[in-house]
Amino acid sequence: MIILGIDPGTNRIGYGVVETNDTATCFVDCGCIEFKTNTNSQANLNSLHAAVQRLIKKHRPNAVAVEKIFFFKNSKTVIAVSQSRGVILLAAAQTQTPIREFTPLQVKQAVSAYGRAQKKEVQKMVRLILGLDFDPSPDDAADALAVAVCAAHSVRDMGQETRDMV
Amino acid sequence: MIILGIDPGTNRIGYGVVETNDTATCFVDCGCIEFKTNTNSQANLNSLHAAVQRLIKKHRPNAVAVEKIFFFKNSKTVIAVSQSRGVILLAAAQTQTPIREFTPLQVKQAVSAYGRAQKKEVQKMVRLILGLDFDPSPDDAADALAVAVCAAHSVRDMGQETRDMV
Repeated sequence: MIILGIDPGTNRIGYGVVETNDTATCFVDCGCIEFKTNTNSQANLNSLHAAVQRLIKKHRPNAVAVEKIFFFKNSKTVIAVSQSRGVILLAAAQTQTPIREFTPLQVKQAVSAYGRAQKKEVQKMVRLILGLDFDPSPDDAADALAVAVCAAHSVRDMGQETRDMV
Repeated sequence: MIILGIDPGTNRIGYGVVETNDTATCFVDCGCIEFKTNTNSQANLNSLHAAVQRLIKKHRPNAVAVEKIFFFKNSKTVIAVSQSRGVILLAAAQTQTPIREFTPLQVKQAVSAYGRAQKKEVQKMVRLILGLDFDPSPDDAADALAVAVCAAHSVRDMGQETRDMV
């Protein structure tokens, strides 16, 4: 099963792709979609949509995983990030790719022992979990991989529960 | 000049189309794109995008006008509305239709003498300004017409300023 994790931001959108089976979760790809200016300009929304569609076409993920957004202190940020998120969800919807949403706490718990890991710890733990010989960077790409790992674990847990019930 | 005003909501998105020239602004169309469930389901985002594209294809507007979003008390609402708004802005961007954004105060001032008009007053004033023999309804369609009227006035004011300068 291939999972595309996306970390929507204001002018930098991280992505991370993992492949998971019953026993392991492996790294496939990661990176950033970057914009010099405000993400929500018409040109940027267009580019973001095209970039997500390209990623889906390239990796053919079984699911797109994104973090749920909660209250932000800066209301300007939450609006811009949510608008980008709408475009990302649309790109997944248009390709009939199921969306999996997780809380920030679920994502951090999936890659660390507790739910308050800092950016650097997330990066380090993603590297350890996926057995990488490099630090996934920038932070946004590492965060996107963490969301993908969280989705992968959730799929494996569901598989385990199903087997336990048999 | 044809303007498509859109009022993004959670499960009801109003739209209003007006045509404006140097002397008058006329009603063309109004209505609602409605969803039974949460707007941000995959199916609904897909339908919203397709519906806005259909409206643009049908009316060929010179501009799409939307209200700016400010701080909402309910953070869940601002996220859902912003995600819908991202999809609407994308549909405009993909058809190279310029977007015009106005604050709620600018919109209310465009259709009433002051900036604190209630929903019913906006509906009544839109009816008067556009010389309609019916109340544009529901509120969301009237609000979308108000945004379109605001954009139309802004265009006419710009034209007037240009003439004054000559």
